[in-house]
Amino acid sequence: MVVAEVVIELKEGVADPEGMNTKKALNLLGWDVEGVKSGKIFEIDLGEDIDEDEAREEVEEMCKRLLANPVIQTYDITLEG
Amino acid sequence: MVVAEVVIELKEGVADPEGMNTKKALNLLGWDVEGVKSGKIFEIDLGEDIDEDEAREEVEEMCKRLLANPVIQTYDITLEG
Repeated sequence: MVVAEVVIELKEGVADPEGMNTKKALNLLGWDVEGVKSGKIFEIDLGEDIDEDEAREEVEEMCKRLLANPVIQTYDITLEG
Repeated sequence: MVVAEVVIELKEGVADPEGMNTKKALNLLGWDVEGVKSGKIFEIDLGEDIDEDEAREEVEEMCKRLLANPVIQTYDITLEG
């Protein structure tokens, strides 16, 4: 079973209100954190019949077409199994 | 600089509508994926003046109190730097 882990984060310079508000909330709770970045993660089960090169290529296409917005987001793909 | 990466996912058995709809959308686009799990990721900058044990303990407390809902979510902490 090949599983791809896709981490999607905002590019540097793009406003991250969820991250900023999480930082504020942590500060209010007494933790002295200096910054928080928020992001999304998808674990995609690609089944058995696929090799690593093919898997990476497919998942990159999925990121471009559906999972990420390449204008403001970066994606990072890790394959397991 | 110590940065903690926190991955928050739904526990097994908890409905994941975002994951299910992402799977459906990928299938409709022609990809034969067998399952998608969605989750969140936070990168927390803890500053310089903290050692690894202390950092892990603090971030675990942050997960319990703010970042995750331990009833339905799991969290996984990785420290860098």
